[in-house]
Amino acid sequence: MSARTITFLTDFGLQDDFVGTCHGVIAGIAPDARVIDITHGIPPQQVLQGALVLASTLPYMPAGVHLAVVDPTVGTDRRAVALSGVDGRLYVGPDNGLLLPAIDKLGGVEGAWELANEEYMLRPVSRTFHGRDIFSPAAAHLAGGVDPAALGPPLAAEELVRLDLPQPEIRHSSLRATILYVDRFGNMQLNLTHEEAALARIEAGARIELRLPLESYYAIATRTFAEARPGDLILYEDSYGNLAIAINGGDAARMFQAKPGDVVRISPAPE
Amino acid sequence: MSARTITFLTDFGLQDDFVGTCHGVIAGIAPDARVIDITHGIPPQQVLQGALVLASTLPYMPAGVHLAVVDPTVGTDRRAVALSGVDGRLYVGPDNGLLLPAIDKLGGVEGAWELANEEYMLRPVSRTFHGRDIFSPAAAHLAGGVDPAALGPPLAAEELVRLDLPQPEIRHSSLRATILYVDRFGNMQLNLTHEEAALARIEAGARIELRLPLESYYAIATRTFAEARPGDLILYEDSYGNLAIAINGGDAARMFQAKPGDVVRISPAPE
Amino acid sequence: MSARTITFLTDFGLQDDFVGTCHGVIAGIAPDARVIDITHGIPPQQVLQGALVLASTLPYMPAGVHLAVVDPTVGTDRRAVALSGVDGRLYVGPDNGLLLPAIDKLGGVEGAWELANEEYMLRPVSRTFHGRDIFSPAAAHLAGGVDPAALGPPLAAEELVRLDLPQPEIRHSSLRATILYVDRFGNMQLNLTHEEAALARIEAGARIELRLPLESYYAIATRTFAEARPGDLILYEDSYGNLAIAINGGDAARMFQAKPGDVVRISPAPE
Repeated sequence: MSARTITFLTDFGLQDDFVGTCHGVIAGIAPDARVIDITHGIPPQQVLQGALVLASTLPYMPAGVHLAVVDPTVGTDRRAVALSGVDGRLYVGPDNGLLLPAIDKLGGVEGAWELANEEYMLRPVSRTFHGRDIFSPAAAHLAGGVDPAALGPPLAAEELVRLDLPQPEIRHSSLRATILYVDRFGNMQLNLTHEEAALARIEAGARIELRLPLESYYAIATRTFAEARPGDLILYEDSYGNLAIAINGGDAARMFQAKPGDVVRISPAPE
Repeated sequence: MSARTITFLTDFGLQDDFVGTCHGVIAGIAPDARVIDITHGIPPQQVLQGALVLASTLPYMPAGVHLAVVDPTVGTDRRAVALSGVDGRLYVGPDNGLLLPAIDKLGGVEGAWELANEEYMLRPVSRTFHGRDIFSPAAAHLAGGVDPAALGPPLAAEELVRLDLPQPEIRHSSLRATILYVDRFGNMQLNLTHEEAALARIEAGARIELRLPLESYYAIATRTFAEARPGDLILYEDSYGNLAIAINGGDAARMFQAKPGDVVRISPAPE
Repeated sequence: MSARTITFLTDFGLQDDFVGTCHGVIAGIAPDARVIDITHGIPPQQVLQGALVLASTLPYMPAGVHLAVVDPTVGTDRRAVALSGVDGRLYVGPDNGLLLPAIDKLGGVEGAWELANEEYMLRPVSRTFHGRDIFSPAAAHLAGGVDPAALGPPLAAEELVRLDLPQPEIRHSSLRATILYVDRFGNMQLNLTHEEAALARIEAGARIELRLPLESYYAIATRTFAEARPGDLILYEDSYGNLAIAINGGDAARMFQAKPGDVVRISPAPE
């Protein structure tokens, strides 16, 4: 049986050798495994953003071993884990909530194991680079056919650390949403679907008011950039099914000085 | 028959997951296809620069399926296309002129088809990420052996959108060139060959005058950085056969505050 | 026999097509070779930093052909070389000292050849992009099984150019170290091991004084970030076995305006 695909998501960036070194470790253990880099551009140590990107993108990835490392508590006693999903996918990463939104989206956790068996680590294990010494080796061994139960003792799914995902507040004619992610174009993804927005009377074609921490703006709810004029401020459905705020041809996050975690209040514009 | 190589060029950048998600989609459809990332650093929405980089680099790529996405008009009625070249290569991208300079350089277009058959798309097709939903699936199916005619109705080559490529103006002893591309070192590639420069009496060893929008400078026409002293401003032939302006050991584009599209006038320096 | 793995390290960056073009050239010559990108983020033309990163990371890479290009003297008469190590690994790059620290760490040089045989180059060879025209083709031919002696005449190991590696100065109760590398988090790697630091009475738990070019600071020698409080300035052992300076949760290099090559004096803090 050929090795499984490994997908790989981190906050390591591409300037240093961290990602390349993990690729080398994986190739040494599982020479036939194919590695797909989802992204290594998660902002440093932003576990929530890593978790959301993983959940958005995994449905587009071939089933396999899904390795993710955003790990601000490396060197503490946070656990390292391997998880299996009800659909048979395998996951490797720190037990800090990073993996669970993706698994939940694909059906939920079936099994969980602590990465404790040093036979499947690079030794000596460094204190600061578990991506290289613990997580990449575990993913590579799983891709090569090792049973996850060989990596360490089982855990109950209830023991796993979970993130608090920000929820939108939806009222009769206003919404309170949170910016989840800002992409390279300055488009700001919200924790909001168009079904939720419709509950507050925000639908395609409506003129709306956006209140951000620093100021308020009028905008247009629209289906696509093509319906807006250059420079228009728009609320649109992005390609992962979330509503997002953009300036057509501009950088909304820069103009608003907005960042993930900021609150946006949305209401129909006064007539 | 094993799957063909897919080369991949975009303006998606590597900070977000856009490139990784397309890799996942391709791997799901054509698990044996090898993907070579030419670059994802084309400046956002700069179709002309994407087209020029594709034309410069494709002669160095194995023949296969050549996927390129720089797509400022996604969401409008611009067409998505698959093209074949007279040398048998296949191309996938938006019908906005991005693909044609490369194909022309390799012999010209043989066949063209509109990507219209939804069986070869990810459904539902998003309004903003055709790279994921239309272009990557088409390239993967072609790499796996699907006939391009299966993807949609044929188009005449004359119907395809073409870019206006800026042409140099060559006079008896002066040139008017355009900056096509600025690389990470600040070197500025011009739409000019050394044969064209010779027509205006600009040859290796000559002292020349460069007039940029903001100021004028003296420079040296030279064969290589090694012939210049540190800090020298030089006009040299770059590795793709275009003339380019550089500061030996420095960043010419930053010093000149110059960018693609800017005009440079070149003439022999007064004696 | 299947082709060998090629590892690839440069200062080309990922914004332009340089790395992608080399991948294309390699795939055309050795279609079955797997390429592992160690990093392309070496600061432009910093041969010493490239050499140190290569030496730190190669022990984590599968044995194969190791291609590295940081080449400020391209276009001069500096040689291009292929080297073999006593452990059977092969190396390709400029003869400017870039490759030797890694080979020395893995046992030393066994054979050396000048890349002179034009049959194994892309012709015409450009004056500025030997990565594409000389080094990538050589690495690909070696990965495909060509004997390194076919690439050009043998050289004596003593003829190879070597870098001066900065050495720490260790006194009874003070150290003079050099910053070798700054990573994306602003952590500053020193040319110093914890055994060397112990000789100057700097051990885990000690309060120390750091004197940088611009100012002095108190810090703590610690084993891991987890032992420090947010904002603490620490001296710790990094994942490659060197001591490094960091601010827990912050960017030390930015705060200190420090860069590779800067000197740091370290001594026990006055009681």
